[in-house]
Amino acid sequence: MKPINVGLLGIGTVGGGTYTVLKRNAEEITRRAGRPIRITTVADKNLELARSVAAGDEVKLSDDAFAVVADPEVDIVVELIGGYGIARELVLKAIENGKHVVTANKALLAVHGNEIFAAAQKKGVMVAFEAAVAGGIPIIKALREGLSANRIQWLAGIINGTTNFILSEMRDKGLPFAEVLKEAQALGYAEADPTFDIEGVDAAHKATIMSAIAFGIPMQFDKAYVEGITKLQAVDIAYAEQLGYRIKLLGIARRRDEGVELRVHPTLIPEKRLIANVEGAMNAVLVQGDAVGATLYYGKGAGAEPTASAVIADLVDVTRLHTADPEHRVPHLAFQPDQMQDVAVLPIDEVVTSYYLRLRVEDKPGVLADITRILADSQISIDAMIQKEPAEGEAQTDIIMLTHQTVEKNANAAIAKIEALPVVQGKVTRLRLENL
Amino acid sequence: MKPINVGLLGIGTVGGGTYTVLKRNAEEITRRAGRPIRITTVADKNLELARSVAAGDEVKLSDDAFAVVADPEVDIVVELIGGYGIARELVLKAIENGKHVVTANKALLAVHGNEIFAAAQKKGVMVAFEAAVAGGIPIIKALREGLSANRIQWLAGIINGTTNFILSEMRDKGLPFAEVLKEAQALGYAEADPTFDIEGVDAAHKATIMSAIAFGIPMQFDKAYVEGITKLQAVDIAYAEQLGYRIKLLGIARRRDEGVELRVHPTLIPEKRLIANVEGAMNAVLVQGDAVGATLYYGKGAGAEPTASAVIADLVDVTRLHTADPEHRVPHLAFQPDQMQDVAVLPIDEVVTSYYLRLRVEDKPGVLADITRILADSQISIDAMIQKEPAEGEAQTDIIMLTHQTVEKNANAAIAKIEALPVVQGKVTRLRLENL
Repeated sequence: MKPINVGLLGIGTVGGGTYTVLKRNAEEITRRAGRPIRITTVADKNLELARSVAAGDEVKLSDDAFAVVADPEVDIVVELIGGYGIARELVLKAIENGKHVVTANKALLAVHGNEIFAAAQKKGVMVAFEAAVAGGIPIIKALREGLSANRIQWLAGIINGTTNFILSEMRDKGLPFAEVLKEAQALGYAEADPTFDIEGVDAAHKATIMSAIAFGIPMQFDKAYVEGITKLQAVDIAYAEQLGYRIKLLGIARRRDEGVELRVHPTLIPEKRLIANVEGAMNAVLVQGDAVGATLYYGKGAGAEPTASAVIADLVDVTRLHTADPEHRVPHLAFQPDQMQDVAVLPIDEVVTSYYLRLRVEDKPGVLADITRILADSQISIDAMIQKEPAEGEAQTDIIMLTHQTVEKNANAAIAKIEALPVVQGKVTRLRLENL
Repeated sequence: MKPINVGLLGIGTVGGGTYTVLKRNAEEITRRAGRPIRITTVADKNLELARSVAAGDEVKLSDDAFAVVADPEVDIVVELIGGYGIARELVLKAIENGKHVVTANKALLAVHGNEIFAAAQKKGVMVAFEAAVAGGIPIIKALREGLSANRIQWLAGIINGTTNFILSEMRDKGLPFAEVLKEAQALGYAEADPTFDIEGVDAAHKATIMSAIAFGIPMQFDKAYVEGITKLQAVDIAYAEQLGYRIKLLGIARRRDEGVELRVHPTLIPEKRLIANVEGAMNAVLVQGDAVGATLYYGKGAGAEPTASAVIADLVDVTRLHTADPEHRVPHLAFQPDQMQDVAVLPIDEVVTSYYLRLRVEDKPGVLADITRILADSQISIDAMIQKEPAEGEAQTDIIMLTHQTVEKNANAAIAKIEALPVVQGKVTRLRLENL
């Protein structure tokens, strides 16, 4: 089947990730999309960088992005340049030329989205932007399609990894903001100029986009209330903790009769909530719908490959919809019907997992040595162990062990040997353990 | 625009929820789908029940489901009868008659899915089944579309609310399985015959469906390893906790070079993991992709309206794809372009939220009374408070208060009055609090 041709604008972090993942998973992505998705042109001012990423591949390289959006061979333009300036011109030009657009540019959409979507609608092309909010988490798809039965009441998200990392560190180490920011910059979690992140602007861009999709309203970034974390003091994080709360930078959109609340600010959240336990650079969005109740979406909100995951999901979506006919709708089982593989399900004996073992043993010297010897002979490593003191007046006690991974049949054989030891009473209780 | 006509088979819990939500949110759903989605016929053996649900509406009622799947007026058949028997016949008949099908029937798909999808593919119709796995959580959509860039490595889900409720109660109360099961039945969390839930069969149906979508393999329910929670002992839950683990009934699908692992069994999970903290009847699925890393999806896995949320999302999807042309693709902002509403974003002064207040005050009698009087006069209730003892040699101390919800301008006015008190030092630190 004829490939769909992609022009990639910008080969930085996300562009590089997109290039790499699309190449690495080409076979599987084609099985899902129904036709190959092929990057035919890469444009970047840094031609040297483009050359090194695309080394050995049959790809046109250019330092002229405007030539790419005019290229008649290109079906989809992927805009990964960022910012409001040249990116806006390129996206509008691509639309004008009848090309579908995939972008990760939240600033552009929050500020110029209304103009861009109107142009796309007029021209009958798609502008897809899953990567603009919460990186690899498919939150745009969930809001736009997965929850379409609901009157969405509110959503609240940890949608900026830099600030969540800083807040996690401030809490864990009791350090002031300025010091943790320096650490975050050294570790690459914060940029040299972190203003957009720490002042809440980036989160406000994303909250603006989500509010539009959730409530069916235009982008209104200029009306958003934006407060960052720069004034947050470690003492308040500590007091909040004493009261049972965590402080997170949330992007909040809430529908009320009078209008819509759209705001970003440091927020206390009860520590029992799942979202309060989202730590480090991770993102999560909580959505409240009138039918479904609360649902939560969690994952990596930034980085080359997580963001590329969203960019490419959009490419697959556009490919499936662009060629919409009964054979190219979204396939029932994700992969095209003629692309299913007959891979065998393994018998449980062949499964690889870790184990929890509980044994009832006589409280005698050497018992533990016998048991651990059997495990060692079976190449099963012990990860943790509890040996209880026998209860008052009892001669027996419990031993609990956690093992490292092994094949189930190997574990079963070892357990049979352990059960055959005269000092072991009855059957070994065996549960499987996954570190996930 | 011409409505799309739905024939609803089964008006029990999920059928009733679907009917109710589709009616309640009709306006918003039409704004998203691009045309009205209208239930024209309801079939149920219990005509009395059907009559009471549809009372006053213009809907045909019937006790003959086969007449509905043959009705030329019906565009989409929603199958909510359940089981492998009559449901299979009806779904195949509907497909044969060229109708799209939406179903919540995991047993049917896990066992007969290969046959059903082949028939649908041949006929060029869609069979949508978001409601079959994890109720209102859009996990099918995430796996099939949101993560389509990834080579999915494994997934692990808490996909049966009954067993998760039982396990949560066993842990919280230290009670044995049989006793908690009775409680769950009394509370309606477990059915009179709970076999499919507690023996892991329901979870295995769902894991089978997810494995097919994740890896592009046929349904192989008969190869799944299925172990329920009936033999789990409270003592092992307690020992696991001492070692830092929780026990959950997981459905696991993992890709290995040799084949696919597909298994359901009680599993120890490190308690620090978000998924280990999914309690009660809630569901969650963790998916590991090679590009995105781990993502998690959380929400209600059962119940009338959460499941209806997924059924109706499928109806919207089918409607959008069925009428696929540039105007009826998935709209950029979820709602059709001519259905956006110009709702105002409220200024931050009008936002309603709770507050954390930190004040530095002189340690004198009456200070607290003055402050609480100001808050009471402003109709601001106090939810919690900490008053610290002054540090050694200091005459001042911190008061920390959490308030109930109020309008921000009201909070600001009260804070200004508090700051004007002679005993209050400097500015009040104010953070917003959301109970989410």
